[in-house]
Amino acid sequence: MLSDALLDAIRDEGVMRRVLKRGVSEIIVESEFVERLQGGRPLRLKMGFDPSATDIHLGHAVGLRKLRQLQDLGHKVVLIVGDWTAQIGDPSGRSATRPMLTAEQVRENAATYMAQFFKIVDRDRTETRWQSEWFGDFSLADVIRLTSRFTVAQFLARDDFASRFKANQPIAITELLYPLLQAYDSVAIESDVEFGGTDQMFNLLVGRDLQGMMGQTPQQCFLMPLLPGTDGVQKMSKSLGNYIGIDEPANEIYGKAMSLPDSQILPYSEYLTDVVDDEIEEMRLALDGGSVNPMELKKRLARELVTQFHDLEAAREAERHFERTVQGGGVPEDMPEHALPPAETLAGMRLSRLLVDAALASSAGEARRLISQGAVQIDGERVSDDSTAGVKAGVVLRAGRRRYVRLV
Amino acid sequence: MLSDALLDAIRDEGVMRRVLKRGVSEIIVESEFVERLQGGRPLRLKMGFDPSATDIHLGHAVGLRKLRQLQDLGHKVVLIVGDWTAQIGDPSGRSATRPMLTAEQVRENAATYMAQFFKIVDRDRTETRWQSEWFGDFSLADVIRLTSRFTVAQFLARDDFASRFKANQPIAITELLYPLLQAYDSVAIESDVEFGGTDQMFNLLVGRDLQGMMGQTPQQCFLMPLLPGTDGVQKMSKSLGNYIGIDEPANEIYGKAMSLPDSQILPYSEYLTDVVDDEIEEMRLALDGGSVNPMELKKRLARELVTQFHDLEAAREAERHFERTVQGGGVPEDMPEHALPPAETLAGMRLSRLLVDAALASSAGEARRLISQGAVQIDGERVSDDSTAGVKAGVVLRAGRRRYVRLV
Repeated sequence: MLSDALLDAIRDEGVMRRVLKRGVSEIIVESEFVERLQGGRPLRLKMGFDPSATDIHLGHAVGLRKLRQLQDLGHKVVLIVGDWTAQIGDPSGRSATRPMLTAEQVRENAATYMAQFFKIVDRDRTETRWQSEWFGDFSLADVIRLTSRFTVAQFLARDDFASRFKANQPIAITELLYPLLQAYDSVAIESDVEFGGTDQMFNLLVGRDLQGMMGQTPQQCFLMPLLPGTDGVQKMSKSLGNYIGIDEPANEIYGKAMSLPDSQILPYSEYLTDVVDDEIEEMRLALDGGSVNPMELKKRLARELVTQFHDLEAAREAERHFERTVQGGGVPEDMPEHALPPAETLAGMRLSRLLVDAALASSAGEARRLISQGAVQIDGERVSDDSTAGVKAGVVLRAGRRRYVRLV
Repeated sequence: MLSDALLDAIRDEGVMRRVLKRGVSEIIVESEFVERLQGGRPLRLKMGFDPSATDIHLGHAVGLRKLRQLQDLGHKVVLIVGDWTAQIGDPSGRSATRPMLTAEQVRENAATYMAQFFKIVDRDRTETRWQSEWFGDFSLADVIRLTSRFTVAQFLARDDFASRFKANQPIAITELLYPLLQAYDSVAIESDVEFGGTDQMFNLLVGRDLQGMMGQTPQQCFLMPLLPGTDGVQKMSKSLGNYIGIDEPANEIYGKAMSLPDSQILPYSEYLTDVVDDEIEEMRLALDGGSVNPMELKKRLARELVTQFHDLEAAREAERHFERTVQGGGVPEDMPEHALPPAETLAGMRLSRLLVDAALASSAGEARRLISQGAVQIDGERVSDDSTAGVKAGVVLRAGRRRYVRLV
């Protein structure tokens, strides 16, 4: 049972409003959830992750912060390492099954993930479970029982399946198993509440249904809004390159936050900081009325984010760095250096390759995009083609606003 | 390797025509099949059965006779006891999964089935395998690998799935597993040829594809025509009640064969007897020209069938019985007796109930149908309602043409 102090907090109207409304799209079924939350029994809050993708970005943080709020009210997170569903992959339309990760890779990836996860979520109120605990011994008979409970039509009604089916894009039969396995996780850990983005609603509801069919009390579903990436438009995702990783250096987090369109200042502040509601409302009024420079509010947001994932000192330093380099237009004092290859190698080298080697771009594709966007400079001169003409020791190579090296 | 004598037989044009054409709808791919058949290596001829349905009727016999012909040419039948697919059931639109049979039931049913199977198929050239040999240890990883090779759209293109999907009838996800498991059987036993009715073509082709994907030489598919039942219209099936079981008493087989519409004399003779092609052609001409009473040809067919599943003596006796009872309109000498219940019980009893008790109908539903069709007589008087009025000791109760009891 939860302590009286926690129960008092849980029953506090302000706390409940923050937990149930802020950064939440929908709760299915809200009234049942509140009843369970206030019932006095610590709830089991299900959160799964795919160990083939180990980076946590702000898009994930929206939900993880919600978990932390609920932990602070005495509830327990059950973190599921999706070492089986990772082999299938939630449908992306590209490949039906992924190469099987080795047990060693899964362990390494899980460790990488958890190091980030526990920056937000309280490790002491978390139970970690591996899907292999229940799927390792899963038999064909278990698969038959599981698949017999749902119809093909039910699953093809899911938005992404429906559109792919209509467009004659292949859907492997395996992909129908994905929601079923995720649903069975809820049964295996006796989940009280599952958390996911609004695009996960179907999967969460299958879990809810399956628990009911298997004699458990159906879980509540907590649907989080999808956070737009730094482009302000598309859902934040690593593959789109519009993400802010919570494990990135302070200067990166700060700089990327400053690159957000102004329209994202309020949603980011609401979903990702503890700035109180009244203040956010004041920010809204000030922005609407033009009485504040959005840059100032964005700097506050950037500081809040760096403070959260590093600390206050790092936030202040990142702000100074930003003001010096980007706002001042200058170059930083502590510029990294990159050693040029021998002249004969350099002569046959594309600039895009050099940008990758110097860690100014993550791929040749990104490098070429930066060049074509005019975002690459050599000693302050914009470069327009993918050539290393003009490159020599001593010059500063710059990609975008915030990445530099001095070539040596 | 097959003996020279067998190879000579296999290469005989007349033999090949009989094996490849008579009672065969389609061979996929015929040229490859002939090449393999004549290659000198005994082929593995896959034949599966569902141990939840143990009765072999003439519809099955068409394929089993083909197996026997190929055995006589030196090839080997691999009989698969479908103890796993039986749990799913090939889609009928009614129920997605069947109750799991106990291991004991499966053994009993398999024994019942095989006692009939080996009336046609040569036991010495048969290897019996159980699906549980490979599916008993089938893991979730195996299921994932298997399901990743085919798409939902491929499977929904199968006729029965397509029409059910279109009609919004439920298709359990499990049902998509059925063709996959049957296909995996081909891999497990390294099938060279699989046999099935034309309605099984999809499943057989999935087996062929899967073998290719898994590095085996794809099996050939031998598609048998679907035999109409005794109504001459619908596919013979136990559930439709239009079947002739190969294990039925001689009089039943004979009588049911005599009830066939004339249109079935030639197909039945072609698919189910060894009457040579030339004679069948003569029968066709005689029927077309009206130079023969179809009854005579049907009697020959009935004799051939009883001889096959009992013996010649039984066939002659069944013919005499038929002539005496049905053709003569009389009642048989050796009429079975049925003891009436006490008068007070009888008074409150429906006639349909009495028909079931006297084994003249298999269910009250069938009994009521017989009554409403005017097929029930008491001492030669047609009965029109479901009442036991007129029933008393000494009278003959008759249902249809060939079932009688004397009430005592």
